[in-house]
Amino acid sequence: MSAEKTAAVLVIGNEVLSGKVEESNATFLIHQLRELGVPLRLVQVIPDEAPTIAEAVAAASGKFDFVFTTGGIGPTHDDMTVPSIARGLGLEMELNSQLDALLHRYCGGEPNEHLRRMAWVPKGSELLWAAGLTFPVLLVRNIYVFPGDPKILRKKFLAIRDRFRTAPYTLLKLFTTCEEGEIAAMMEEAEKRCPGVQIGSYPVYDNPEYKVQITVESKEPAKARETLSFLAAHIPAASIVRME
Amino acid sequence: MSAEKTAAVLVIGNEVLSGKVEESNATFLIHQLRELGVPLRLVQVIPDEAPTIAEAVAAASGKFDFVFTTGGIGPTHDDMTVPSIARGLGLEMELNSQLDALLHRYCGGEPNEHLRRMAWVPKGSELLWAAGLTFPVLLVRNIYVFPGDPKILRKKFLAIRDRFRTAPYTLLKLFTTCEEGEIAAMMEEAEKRCPGVQIGSYPVYDNPEYKVQITVESKEPAKARETLSFLAAHIPAASIVRME
Repeated sequence: MSAEKTAAVLVIGNEVLSGKVEESNATFLIHQLRELGVPLRLVQVIPDEAPTIAEAVAAASGKFDFVFTTGGIGPTHDDMTVPSIARGLGLEMELNSQLDALLHRYCGGEPNEHLRRMAWVPKGSELLWAAGLTFPVLLVRNIYVFPGDPKILRKKFLAIRDRFRTAPYTLLKLFTTCEEGEIAAMMEEAEKRCPGVQIGSYPVYDNPEYKVQITVESKEPAKARETLSFLAAHIPAASIVRME
Repeated sequence: MSAEKTAAVLVIGNEVLSGKVEESNATFLIHQLRELGVPLRLVQVIPDEAPTIAEAVAAASGKFDFVFTTGGIGPTHDDMTVPSIARGLGLEMELNSQLDALLHRYCGGEPNEHLRRMAWVPKGSELLWAAGLTFPVLLVRNIYVFPGDPKILRKKFLAIRDRFRTAPYTLLKLFTTCEEGEIAAMMEEAEKRCPGVQIGSYPVYDNPEYKVQITVESKEPAKARETLSFLAAHIPAASIVRME
């Protein structure tokens, strides 16, 4: 389990921090990564500022296996993601002839100075192509660079997502009318007995049916089932509303 | 402007990173802080792991004026926010007699060992009371500790929010049928000419009415209006759909 590959999502954009745009890209990636079996360890929303982006990207690139950035890759003054990645990783920028050709095609001629910036990438970058893509996904070391536009991000991520797929999670649930305080000791015991299993406890305050949802999660289905059985055997039977 | 007080939001919870719960607390705080005039510089979602929480909290506490944490403050094994804050700031934990009395009242008697943990706080913590609150808001240095339950978080934040209020933002918008690449140079020029004004550029790809929304934002209304006028004077008049 310790060799499991982890992920981080960095959302780059003043528009999210200032509430002008509702964040939906991180939400999309959270669900995608879960489906793919990839443990997501960090979501971070940061402003369009070169030093902040450089620092966040460098830190995430060192700590996690896959880093996904969204936003800040257009032609305007507030689009700083790509040069800031270079700065963070200590890489030089270079004109990528393939991207330059694409931009020429896209513009139907010579792109202006600002559009042309979009053909500059950190040295050693890869361009990932997949069926259905007009522009490739930029990969700098372990950093996958996505745009902020939700439709384009989705299209690009879906096109390359199978490269991230790994063993799926098994998620089981137990709903009880016990209060969290009554079952806390027992859950702590279960967590100790079952390494490789994550136990979550989520109280609700206005549900007539149950008071706590306990989740049991593992990449080893047998372990998840075993943990659920342990929990079920140690919670008062009459308080168990259902398991799923 | 440099003395402006900044904020960070730390969402603590595996349930968000694993997609079991849709995040809504950060979204709420983003809008609240904007309304209050407080610049939010970071939103971070991290797992329920003591070292990770300790590190994130210590970093944010040093960098920003106000840090808001959400989640991880119940009685179960996955509730680690408060002791992790102590760890991050190098503070000892102590039993708070006021919280202990509240817990006794809440439980109608002696709380069990797990519930009683909720009365332990980092040394030097403050309890913030406001009308309508059953439990106070815990303040550790500049860290405001909120629960993960969205209803309770809202109630608690709204009860104390006026302490954060400062000069409001003025936000103006210009919608144009120009492409981003055509107006990039002009926006860069505007940004240089107008310090203290933030210019945002947001392309849309499926709107028949306009192609780019430009936002101009400042705490100085006159500067925001001046910047909008500059932009309006330098974008082809026929391409301007509207300003607001």
